[in-house]
Amino acid sequence: MNLRNCKTIKKRRELIESECKVFLSNIGHYSLDENVASTRNCENMIGVTQIPLGIAGPLAISFSSSKTQEQGTKNYYLPLATTEGALVASINRGCKAITESGGAHVLCHRIGSTRGPVFKVQSLEENSQLFDFLMGHEDEMKKIAETTSRHLKMLSYDTKSTGLYRFVRFVYDTQDAMGLNMVTIATDAVVRFIEEKTGARCVSLSGNFCVDKKASHLNFQNSRGREVWAEVRITPPVVQSVLNTTPEKFVETWLSKCMVGSAMSGSMGFNAQFANVLSAVFIATGQDPAHVAECAIGMTTAEVTPAADLYVSIYLPDLMVGTVGGGTGLGTQKEALEILGVAGPSVGGDGKNAEKFAGIVGAAVLAGEISLLASLSQGTLAQAHKKLARGQGMANDK
Amino acid sequence: MNLRNCKTIKKRRELIESECKVFLSNIGHYSLDENVASTRNCENMIGVTQIPLGIAGPLAISFSSSKTQEQGTKNYYLPLATTEGALVASINRGCKAITESGGAHVLCHRIGSTRGPVFKVQSLEENSQLFDFLMGHEDEMKKIAETTSRHLKMLSYDTKSTGLYRFVRFVYDTQDAMGLNMVTIATDAVVRFIEEKTGARCVSLSGNFCVDKKASHLNFQNSRGREVWAEVRITPPVVQSVLNTTPEKFVETWLSKCMVGSAMSGSMGFNAQFANVLSAVFIATGQDPAHVAECAIGMTTAEVTPAADLYVSIYLPDLMVGTVGGGTGLGTQKEALEILGVAGPSVGGDGKNAEKFAGIVGAAVLAGEISLLASLSQGTLAQAHKKLARGQGMANDK
Amino acid sequence: MNLRNCKTIKKRRELIESECKVFLSNIGHYSLDENVASTRNCENMIGVTQIPLGIAGPLAISFSSSKTQEQGTKNYYLPLATTEGALVASINRGCKAITESGGAHVLCHRIGSTRGPVFKVQSLEENSQLFDFLMGHEDEMKKIAETTSRHLKMLSYDTKSTGLYRFVRFVYDTQDAMGLNMVTIATDAVVRFIEEKTGARCVSLSGNFCVDKKASHLNFQNSRGREVWAEVRITPPVVQSVLNTTPEKFVETWLSKCMVGSAMSGSMGFNAQFANVLSAVFIATGQDPAHVAECAIGMTTAEVTPAADLYVSIYLPDLMVGTVGGGTGLGTQKEALEILGVAGPSVGGDGKNAEKFAGIVGAAVLAGEISLLASLSQGTLAQAHKKLARGQGMANDK
Amino acid sequence: MNLRNCKTIKKRRELIESECKVFLSNIGHYSLDENVASTRNCENMIGVTQIPLGIAGPLAISFSSSKTQEQGTKNYYLPLATTEGALVASINRGCKAITESGGAHVLCHRIGSTRGPVFKVQSLEENSQLFDFLMGHEDEMKKIAETTSRHLKMLSYDTKSTGLYRFVRFVYDTQDAMGLNMVTIATDAVVRFIEEKTGARCVSLSGNFCVDKKASHLNFQNSRGREVWAEVRITPPVVQSVLNTTPEKFVETWLSKCMVGSAMSGSMGFNAQFANVLSAVFIATGQDPAHVAECAIGMTTAEVTPAADLYVSIYLPDLMVGTVGGGTGLGTQKEALEILGVAGPSVGGDGKNAEKFAGIVGAAVLAGEISLLASLSQGTLAQAHKKLARGQGMANDK
Repeated sequence: MNLRNCKTIKKRRELIESECKVFLSNIGHYSLDENVASTRNCENMIGVTQIPLGIAGPLAISFSSSKTQEQGTKNYYLPLATTEGALVASINRGCKAITESGGAHVLCHRIGSTRGPVFKVQSLEENSQLFDFLMGHEDEMKKIAETTSRHLKMLSYDTKSTGLYRFVRFVYDTQDAMGLNMVTIATDAVVRFIEEKTGARCVSLSGNFCVDKKASHLNFQNSRGREVWAEVRITPPVVQSVLNTTPEKFVETWLSKCMVGSAMSGSMGFNAQFANVLSAVFIATGQDPAHVAECAIGMTTAEVTPAADLYVSIYLPDLMVGTVGGGTGLGTQKEALEILGVAGPSVGGDGKNAEKFAGIVGAAVLAGEISLLASLSQGTLAQAHKKLARGQGMANDK
Repeated sequence: MNLRNCKTIKKRRELIESECKVFLSNIGHYSLDENVASTRNCENMIGVTQIPLGIAGPLAISFSSSKTQEQGTKNYYLPLATTEGALVASINRGCKAITESGGAHVLCHRIGSTRGPVFKVQSLEENSQLFDFLMGHEDEMKKIAETTSRHLKMLSYDTKSTGLYRFVRFVYDTQDAMGLNMVTIATDAVVRFIEEKTGARCVSLSGNFCVDKKASHLNFQNSRGREVWAEVRITPPVVQSVLNTTPEKFVETWLSKCMVGSAMSGSMGFNAQFANVLSAVFIATGQDPAHVAECAIGMTTAEVTPAADLYVSIYLPDLMVGTVGGGTGLGTQKEALEILGVAGPSVGGDGKNAEKFAGIVGAAVLAGEISLLASLSQGTLAQAHKKLARGQGMANDK
Repeated sequence: MNLRNCKTIKKRRELIESECKVFLSNIGHYSLDENVASTRNCENMIGVTQIPLGIAGPLAISFSSSKTQEQGTKNYYLPLATTEGALVASINRGCKAITESGGAHVLCHRIGSTRGPVFKVQSLEENSQLFDFLMGHEDEMKKIAETTSRHLKMLSYDTKSTGLYRFVRFVYDTQDAMGLNMVTIATDAVVRFIEEKTGARCVSLSGNFCVDKKASHLNFQNSRGREVWAEVRITPPVVQSVLNTTPEKFVETWLSKCMVGSAMSGSMGFNAQFANVLSAVFIATGQDPAHVAECAIGMTTAEVTPAADLYVSIYLPDLMVGTVGGGTGLGTQKEALEILGVAGPSVGGDGKNAEKFAGIVGAAVLAGEISLLASLSQGTLAQAHKKLARGQGMANDK
Repeated sequence: MNLRNCKTIKKRRELIESECKVFLSNIGHYSLDENVASTRNCENMIGVTQIPLGIAGPLAISFSSSKTQEQGTKNYYLPLATTEGALVASINRGCKAITESGGAHVLCHRIGSTRGPVFKVQSLEENSQLFDFLMGHEDEMKKIAETTSRHLKMLSYDTKSTGLYRFVRFVYDTQDAMGLNMVTIATDAVVRFIEEKTGARCVSLSGNFCVDKKASHLNFQNSRGREVWAEVRITPPVVQSVLNTTPEKFVETWLSKCMVGSAMSGSMGFNAQFANVLSAVFIATGQDPAHVAECAIGMTTAEVTPAADLYVSIYLPDLMVGTVGGGTGLGTQKEALEILGVAGPSVGGDGKNAEKFAGIVGAAVLAGEISLLASLSQGTLAQAHKKLARGQGMANDK
């Protein structure tokens, strides 16, 4: 008997219990819709992994983008799925500093989801002809791509070549979906058209020119998904009372670590802990956590303003998120999106929900940066870890 | 009323339900030990996120490292927590190809967990004196570090400076733990000693020279956690029957995508889908999924051997995993580690369990590479996504 | 008495001779026009540095670009200024292999010279408004830029921001000139316009977003100056007789070194010796040799064709060259450009000369790659160096 | 008749004149020793390229390294070969600012010249055995290497592997020589020993793991040649009178450009103009200018000190220079080294001359950074270029 012959979650779990001599009572304990999960989200399903879900907030946010149609500043509660003690407390402290300062201001720019196939040709001349073909058939390719889904629009494409290889990066608007499945299917159709018309051969539908789930300078330079910026000005009293530090110390720590340190270590993350916040929000809300590999690149800036306030900003050049598709429809994930008020497709199908969600993620990332940099600037990080190691928790810490 | 005043998970959940006008029945449904989870893993806890858990395997693995004391080739079942349809099926197919070829051979090398504080001094001369101090006080610093935990040994340290900044990267063996909390506490103690003895000032206990949770060349060049290699030779019949491709096509796709493509996009991941496999295993087994940001760097190689077989290997220069600490003790996560036979501390406390687990992760990553590259080389990736989009599942696919 | 008071080259040289107790008879020996050199090329001039100039060739080249209006394949002799023994011999061997194979085919694409100032604003909203301003005033900025020189056209610009910083990368066609001086002056004018109209403050006319004379992924991804590709197919007999190797060995060496090796070392040069060839040609022809820092990035590809030939290509994403301005008008440099038939401005002022020169540089770089990779594949590099160390020369080597 | 048949420089030049219908009177005008140049430095020699040579200085420098045995602060005049107007004037201004501030303080650390061959094996086990062999035969390999030259010592080696590839980076002290030829010959001998003893096959004596003449993170992280640091503190009056700016403006420009800008453009040069200064010094003194491709990586830092002074430092992680070998013995190049007092081998053969020269290069690079950043902070860069374009020179500018 093997996994393939097990037709139900329970049978599979029992097989594993028997084969591995283990007892999987927790894995077998869940409330999600197993029919959906086992056919759309996870093959060979045997149950679930339970990840503790915490809340940080309230986090006051105002949006710049007219797309979200959000006026003024509103409070949000951030759902964060994590097993790493201190993370929720840390983000929570950042939320407090932001909210007491009047809120984070966020700005989003939709770039689009991308797929980057690689073609091979016989000569530089053929490669040049392929370039000309691509430049001359935008409308046809757009049309072909858009027949594959009514939720997808091809926005543009870039191309780059070396020797007999040509890489093309197709960029799509996929409304409220992160949309990688959609863009894969659409790009496949476009690729077949190109092959047929030009004789060029597609060697791989993904030529690592997407660039999907890898830290890359292409995504840093030219962005992917959405670009998100968030900022806040924190007055010295709030810096003192909530963050226990000073604007000057904060900025010195930022400069030493996020700028000089990241440069010295050849890092693509000029930030403190983007990855921590992103992975906690991604898991809670049904995003693809593998995208953390690419989304954690980006930059934090900090300065003391002429008015002696602490200014902090974050920039995410490559944020791949959605409110439909992937894991967003599963029981707990959907509830998490509902906490944020962005579950499912937006009315009008214009990607408004995903846009708003992206902005919230940006503000959450900002909160994480503020809290950790403040803690490092005061030399209190280790103490927090010590308390944690003793199981004393951190929820009530400032 | 606010979150801070809520003393129980239930109270907090009810507060959020009331504030956000949502109903969190799934989030409230769990079996893990909420006392542990809410004090050690997640502040402000309101429940859990349920992630579908699938199984890929059997995956035959033989270990090189004498540390694991594993003899011969054994079969493993991989627990994979994911919401991304097709992933488990894809890894499963890779497992099949590997297992039918006699198994993956894996090799691990323990580098150690690192913390990289940044110091500031007043002049190049002082910086040079700080360097001399560091070189001359290894034994004392080692002793100080090791008083902070009986599970930790300082292995070595490197240092690099620019202007008035000095970065030091302390490297520790933390037995079966990934150990970041431990190394933070130990480094804090060492830092205080250095400050006291030299007058140098530590600006940040983490100077992004660790490099924690950021894709970085320092980690790629000098490694972090563990280096893991895995390889397999697949005969042409298995390449054909399981992977539906040929060794030549496979290698051409690998070269175009993982080498030329990643070079052209300035990517630090010369691979196909390390991030997908890592995030699914990490979430299932209680690792810190934010580490995907750094662990997904690395390289896949492929070639047609003189005997016309397909040789594939993976190299993970920076794998941060453990079998104790973090989320590894939570209900479902512990069961997942038990499925692999590596739960908890190893007998003898020598890190054997974590070593073995690292090797299994390497073999799983290899399975993922084989399957995706095969699929891309045949141009069938989009079809798989189409079936998935129709909810037809993939579990029984080859 | 000091340098400032010395009004002639001779006086300055005498001052240095006296101050440093040296005799500078060689430095004082030159034929270039010292009035031009000392006012336009080099302040505080005391004489010249003499660099040995060698010739490699003939090198047969055919051009793809219609801009060069070159028909068919023609032979070129490459002037190479170098003090590194074996380099000219090596390039010469590559030329022979190429020419005996019917010549290199080259393709150029004019990107344009760039300047990338950085602005600061007061808030994300202001940054967004600055973005809108830039998008809405292309014609005016173009007009302003083009009033500064009749040889310059603004082609486009890109912009990217983080926090309160906004970087703008202006791209210009500068005809036959590399044009950095021109684009600096033009960008200065545009920047003043932007400052006046928006209130944004330019912090630096160059914000390292140009990116001038630094290896950078922005230049690799989005190119600068010109993109140049060159290719050749070499038959096995020529591979054997001229290069002493086989196509298979050559390709194996290329893959190990230029792909896997460069990936393993985090290099931006996926090539063998771009820098060697570029610096020798740049110095000989009056280019700015500091540009080697950025121009040496790029990629070589190699494969055994279905017809069993050796195919080799090079790709220069960032080639900054010109045939007017800089050192191109100096005596020896002008003669070197005349050897190539590309001295001075082209008839019609359309950049034809610089375009053709860029193509020749591409072919020269290809010759260097072929020769060195062949030598490495045969394990004969060290022997060459040994002969050289004994002063036996290499000019007559194959 | 072809080049190969021409036995003299004159014959070759005449051939080119005849073939290309040009007149090469300047190229034929030189004073260097043509017998040496044409056999050791340049094959197929037809004459020389004359590069204008300017002087910047005096530049006051004090050395930290005991190796140079220099006591106190001394003045140096920098020979700079360049065709780029404004460069010497710019460096000269930086020298003035430094010298009026009491001089630059420099620190050098000898890393060693490196060669990084790549080996191939049959399996991970063999690769592991090769690793063990390398670790266990240090003394033998050292001995073999050192038989190839009495000027060379093997200092250490590192190794890294992926799949069937193993890269080894041998590090050598080569006294006063940059030493690449020497280390190539020595590494070849070692490689043959390894091949013989292990059965591993060396695919390329250089596996781009050296990393020679390519910008790479391996060299940035682990350094090559020499690490050099230089610093200066400039009082506000000197900042004002010599640099026409303020410490605050200077630091703001540095932060925007060298830190944020370089991070945003994915650059490996966190500096303003390392490449300009390096190429001018390298060409003047007979270094290999192709090394600019790797040596121009590195970092500048700046800050306003508590005493309100301007502190500026530079860090060169990868400086490949020498005072013997290469072009250092040619007429004009030797004179340039004599101006600096570091020509030829040092007494005692301990690399003292090269060490001192490296320090001078560091101070020169510092001067270039100070001047350009000051100019950018005042917005006067374009004006300088305008004057230059009108042929008004810059020598007498502050």
